[in-house]
Amino acid sequence: MLNQVLNRLHEQRQPAIDRLCDWLRIPSVSTDPAFAPDVRRAAQWAADRLRECGLDVKIVPTKGHPVVMAKTKGRRDEGTKGRSEGNGSASPPSSLRPSVPTSLSSPPSLLFYGHYDVQPPDPIDLWTTPPFQPTIRDGAIYARGADDDKGQVSTFLEALRAWHDVAGQIPINLTVILEGEEECGSANLVPFLEAHKAELAADVAIVSDTAMWGDADPILPAITYGLRGLVYFDIQLHGPARDLHSGVYGGTVPNPATELAIVLGQLFDSNHRINIPGFYDDVAPITADERAQWDALHFDERKMAQSVGLEQLHGEAGFSTLERRWARPCCDINGLYGGYMGQGAKTVIPSFAGAKVSFRIPPDMNPLRVDMLFRDFLTDHTPPGCSWKIEQHGAAHPVLVPTDSPYLQAAKRAITIATGGTAPVLMREGATIPVISDFKRILGINTVMMGFGRHDDAIHSPNEHFRLDCFDLGRRAHAAMIDELRKM
Amino acid sequence: MLNQVLNRLHEQRQPAIDRLCDWLRIPSVSTDPAFAPDVRRAAQWAADRLRECGLDVKIVPTKGHPVVMAKTKGRRDEGTKGRSEGNGSASPPSSLRPSVPTSLSSPPSLLFYGHYDVQPPDPIDLWTTPPFQPTIRDGAIYARGADDDKGQVSTFLEALRAWHDVAGQIPINLTVILEGEEECGSANLVPFLEAHKAELAADVAIVSDTAMWGDADPILPAITYGLRGLVYFDIQLHGPARDLHSGVYGGTVPNPATELAIVLGQLFDSNHRINIPGFYDDVAPITADERAQWDALHFDERKMAQSVGLEQLHGEAGFSTLERRWARPCCDINGLYGGYMGQGAKTVIPSFAGAKVSFRIPPDMNPLRVDMLFRDFLTDHTPPGCSWKIEQHGAAHPVLVPTDSPYLQAAKRAITIATGGTAPVLMREGATIPVISDFKRILGINTVMMGFGRHDDAIHSPNEHFRLDCFDLGRRAHAAMIDELRKM
Repeated sequence: MLNQVLNRLHEQRQPAIDRLCDWLRIPSVSTDPAFAPDVRRAAQWAADRLRECGLDVKIVPTKGHPVVMAKTKGRRDEGTKGRSEGNGSASPPSSLRPSVPTSLSSPPSLLFYGHYDVQPPDPIDLWTTPPFQPTIRDGAIYARGADDDKGQVSTFLEALRAWHDVAGQIPINLTVILEGEEECGSANLVPFLEAHKAELAADVAIVSDTAMWGDADPILPAITYGLRGLVYFDIQLHGPARDLHSGVYGGTVPNPATELAIVLGQLFDSNHRINIPGFYDDVAPITADERAQWDALHFDERKMAQSVGLEQLHGEAGFSTLERRWARPCCDINGLYGGYMGQGAKTVIPSFAGAKVSFRIPPDMNPLRVDMLFRDFLTDHTPPGCSWKIEQHGAAHPVLVPTDSPYLQAAKRAITIATGGTAPVLMREGATIPVISDFKRILGINTVMMGFGRHDDAIHSPNEHFRLDCFDLGRRAHAAMIDELRKM
Repeated sequence: MLNQVLNRLHEQRQPAIDRLCDWLRIPSVSTDPAFAPDVRRAAQWAADRLRECGLDVKIVPTKGHPVVMAKTKGRRDEGTKGRSEGNGSASPPSSLRPSVPTSLSSPPSLLFYGHYDVQPPDPIDLWTTPPFQPTIRDGAIYARGADDDKGQVSTFLEALRAWHDVAGQIPINLTVILEGEEECGSANLVPFLEAHKAELAADVAIVSDTAMWGDADPILPAITYGLRGLVYFDIQLHGPARDLHSGVYGGTVPNPATELAIVLGQLFDSNHRINIPGFYDDVAPITADERAQWDALHFDERKMAQSVGLEQLHGEAGFSTLERRWARPCCDINGLYGGYMGQGAKTVIPSFAGAKVSFRIPPDMNPLRVDMLFRDFLTDHTPPGCSWKIEQHGAAHPVLVPTDSPYLQAAKRAITIATGGTAPVLMREGATIPVISDFKRILGINTVMMGFGRHDDAIHSPNEHFRLDCFDLGRRAHAAMIDELRKM
């Protein structure tokens, strides 16, 4: 039966691309209230497509943008039995399609998560073609959201559609949730998960929002089993009650911009380690197996440096670049602001200055502890006459999924089928997908991160794109994964 | 005769206020091209008033805003002799006013400098009354430019007018220049001085653009004899070729915002001294006399801290606040910028980050040497994989005027007359007035800084104002100073 589904996907290539383009034309920019009607339309569009796959669909309102939630009708083991045995209902034989054999025991329930909102397209003038007029060129679809995440979600939607077309139904117990606020902080997702805990019960989750391995060809299919967590702060150092003339007051009052730089500088030691006592206590060392696997990836540091226009990389002393990216904490200043920021000169001592400071934390660091340590560090380093205003803008736990779980093994088989024989590599990612740790914490389930993007897809940047060969691979892999789950 | 002039000033108080208000109604914001016609109108207004005092006036174009230049007609020694002896010209006896006796030798030639442009009024909504609708309340004129520098210049213009009204002429050789670009960098002033060197020849200059002594009552009249110089930089640290995702790249690439903070932090040692080898080599120590004079000022550090909303002051260890302000160098970060500066969070590693960094330098530091030392420091501290873009936005020498010069002694007498017996204190200022060192370097003359502002006049800030008692004192002091010069 999988072969028929894969054939169907092959036939449906152009219609699938057209459908994705339809979705991409809707500018569902979640962070900007001006686009709220478009965000709503994008949700409706997804709901309509899920309904076409025979799912029960509802659009669940939140305090922000809604969540599209879809479920297979009844549990598949019962449902299938009901249909094969007949249940006296008036429902006609659904079609002439072949029946779908499932495993004797109940197949696992799957929760699929994706998001239908997109990043703002700015800066617009750097786009070769308009961000919301999807264009195919050089074997890729160019549009905002082409990869992140409409393109990746579409690989799953198309697999569902093909299964539905071939088998008349989705042969597993499935719940789909598509969020509309991933690009603006997911403020309402945890409350949603908590409120719908029972409906969302599943054995495993799948998320397609990651990239494959490699920065350039060859790109290898990959399953991501680890993520760093994140703690993000906006810190402001306040000093004089008003801006002061730097000639009259310079050298006699605490200058918050100067003092902020001094404190931030003290956050790092000469080995570029974070200079907070106890900060590294909980960092899980990588295992010998992992080290061997990572070595086998032959990560090319020179190529990575070139790809971002650098002559050399830089980071914590004593670790490889891959370890620094995947398994070591780091602290980045994501923004600096304060005083005069325009052209030319203004001789001002600003009354305050600020910085966006974030920490990426590998397993097993705890964001709550990092929050506490950083606040303590700042308090301990409060410059004379100054005071801090500290806001935390998000804390997410790191994730480490067991690589020996049957679901991850199933995903490896599915991807190997989809590629025609190339097994996926197991990798971690330095970035954060908070929903993965939320699933673990709230729903008690692990997630298989099957992503089909590439690191050079320019997500969040102008000219975002998704390669059609990635799109094809994703559709096939999800179709095969459904087959693997069906047989479990 | 001076008494008659002072009486005239007394009678003319309201008309003088009205004239100043007329000038203040013209929004001569030099930095914003939208106000160019207003800047021009403000120049014309000043030219008309100077012409009313019997001066030859021209408005000299520059590459930017024009300079108003006015001169007494012919040298006063010759002119006066010519008039008293008769020279066969057809000019009628000018009036029934008393003749003006001058010294037997040629009286000194005076160059008066001021500026007719003003700072932008932003933030407008913090003004109690509109910045270009001058309002009298609580004994002060509120408007942008009320003190800096239209109000201060008006004290001199009114003294000229009173002398002209009483004596029919200005009894000294006088050149007045009023600049229109002081608030936007004076880019065209040095070329102007160099091009008009002969016309500007004088024995001494007077500038009224400083404040009196004290942050609150009692305010003491003052002559400023020292200024710090300034070197101002915009420095940018560039790293990756584009902004990067801090999850994917964090910990592996040089982050310019982080590295900039580290380098700036290294610029200061734990005593808040500037951490550049040789930086303090040329700082002139203050003399025992100066220290005694400064001690006698009874500077109130607590009051100063309170006035800017601070619980404590802060600066280089081992020096008093007054020494730090007047006689020690300092380095201030006047602005920080880079990466994400908006509300909330964006997980970006910026491709660059920048800072405005300025040095105030007391006598005898050389701005060119400071420029070189700072560039060397930055180069020596270039973070791996990064590069600097350094722009200097202005360098000015410090100023130290000899306090035993006859002109400064004359100013002391004049101010003592104007106050009715209170001698001015001698003070320095921490700020910079580049024109003072330009006069010394290009014209070879010292400047007497007779200023009548107060530190709490909110220059460059919302609700700028000039107290009427300061306005009165300035008018009287300038009138007396003209008398003192006349008699030299």
